[in-house]
Order: sequence, then C-alpha cells, then structure tokens
Amino acid sequence: MHAEPAVPAFTYPPIGTIRSPFHDTAGMPIQPNGARGVRGTVEVFGKYREGLSDLDGFTRIILIYAFHTCTDHRLTVTPFLDTTARGVFATRSPRRPNAIGISVVRLTGMKGTTLEVEDVDVLDGTPLLDIKPYVPEFDSYPGSSCGWLEKVAGNAETARSDDRFR
Amino acid sequence: MHAEPAVPAFTYPPIGTIRSPFHDTAGMPIQPNGARGVRGTVEVFGKYREGLSDLDGFTRIILIYAFHTCTDHRLTVTPFLDTTARGVFATRSPRRPNAIGISVVRLTGMKGTTLEVEDVDVLDGTPLLDIKPYVPEFDSYPGSSCGWLEKVAGNAETARSDDRFR
Repeated sequence: MHAEPAVPAFTYPPIGTIRSPFHDTAGMPIQPNGARGVRGTVEVFGKYREGLSDLDGFTRIILIYAFHTCTDHRLTVTPFLDTTARGVFATRSPRRPNAIGISVVRLTGMKGTTLEVEDVDVLDGTPLLDIKPYVPEFDSYPGSSCGWLEKVAGNAETARSDDRFR
Repeated sequence: MHAEPAVPAFTYPPIGTIRSPFHDTAGMPIQPNGARGVRGTVEVFGKYREGLSDLDGFTRIILIYAFHTCTDHRLTVTPFLDTTARGVFATRSPRRPNAIGISVVRLTGMKGTTLEVEDVDVLDGTPLLDIKPYVPEFDSYPGSSCGWLEKVAGNAETARSDDRFR
C-alpha cells in the first residue's frame, strides 16, 4: 500500500467554455460515439488565441475539462452500461476522485477563438482545461481489450445518461 | 473574442505517483510510441484501492497527470518534431497553460495498488491525477489527419527530448 505523501494539489483555471445542446445530465449521450454529429463550440478565452495556431489541420482534438457539476465521488460506481458495481478507475464515470473528463471530438471549423466541434458529449457550460491535438500515432489503439465493457459493447451508442450522476 | 469570466480554478490533489526509468527530461522519449516496452509502475495511494477494481481486464489505460516540473508556459512552442513554432494547443508540449499530460500506456499487471505498465513516457515521480480505461470505441480514431505533424510523421519513434522544456 502506498501512503499518501504530503504533496501539493495542482490548481488549473479554465481556459475556455464548452457549449453544447445538453443542459442537463439526464438524457445526455454518455460518450462521443453516442453523440455523433452533435454540434457544439469551444469558446477559448481571448488571451489564449495565439496558442490555437496550427490546430486547424487536425481532424480531431482532445478536450480536457472539469466535470464541474460533480461535487463528490465514489470509489465504485454502477456504470450506465452495466448492472454491476465497478471500480471507478475502470469506468468513465464523472464521479471520480479528481473529476477530470476527456473527450475526443471532431474539429470542423475555427472562427477567432471559437472552435466548431462535432460529437460533443459534455454539458453546456463545461469549463475547459486544455486542448490537445489527436494524433493516431500516439492515441489510437484499435485492438485493445476493454474488460467488463466487452460484454456490454455496442450499448454506448444508444445509452443515455440518467440522473444518477447529478 | 471571449472574455475570461470570473470562474474559479479547479484543484486536484494527486492520487498516486508514476515511476519510470526517466529521471531527467533530456533523453526522454517524447511520446509512448517512442517508449515501446519501457516499463514503469503507477503507485496509487492506498485510500483509492477500491477504485482500481475491474481495471485488470483492460489492455491499456489512460494516465492523466501533472507536468510537475513545468513552472511556466508559452503560447507558441517549437516542437521536438519540427523546426517551426506552433500554437501550443496544436502540440503535446508540457509547457501549456494548464500543464496536464495524458498518456495511453499498456497495463501488464496489478499488485495491490501498484500497476505495472509499459510504454511509459513520463518522468519518474510524476504526480498522477486520474486513471481511465482505454476504450477503442470511445478513444480510437486511426484515420484522423494530424496537421503539421503529417509532414514529420515517423520522427516521434526515434526523437528524444532535449532540455528545452526544463
């Protein structure tokens, strides 16, 4: 067992806001592959404008954001896709010790510091922490096994959130 | 242009520590695909043990961590793979406004709260913020274009860090 050393916490101010059609967690798609074609925007704060150069050549970008409506966490959760409780780190549940989310979305356009994106699976108003380019050479591992999810694969496209994560 | 609203910053305490053979940024592989087979461990703090259940069925996991040695950032950087300055959000440079890193590593074993991993491309002692299961259905987009990186593709496997990000 690893004792928790006296390490400082890391503090990250939002660099922008994600806009989506989803104003409530209930009814949301649970992942981008259930949000195909759903359009949103990423409004990056003006002072970061220079950092967005060269982003327009990428098909997809990785959004890193805060699950800002989650105020507590659990170490085991029953995922939307399953009926059995799972360790939270083996799920994509927002109710995690550090409520950080990542989503791979399609970049369809840029106007100033507004990015037009598709396949958006986050709540409207979500605070953005970082943007990274999606690079298949670094990020794409199509053949990876995915444990308990194998049994329920295919459900993600049609599954919708309910209110359990409010 | 989007003005920065008065939003609070988000604070995340580390949940563990990443161990790797890399004690200095100089000479490090710059991404996991240049670190194939490099072994490391993820030491999760004991109090999160329950959250690791069911993780062992996944081939790969996504580590989210703090680039803890980065104390400042730049909005444009000249990446290791290129000779032209690029917007930082179009790169994977650690010197970003919020110095959060993500790496997709191979999970090869678990002993208590220690995860054995391969393809580790981070500094020894890196503070871990989150672990997510890698799910190809959500995360794998093999055909995505990658802008300026297309021209320098293939360099990532052999490129090594120098001291520019110290």
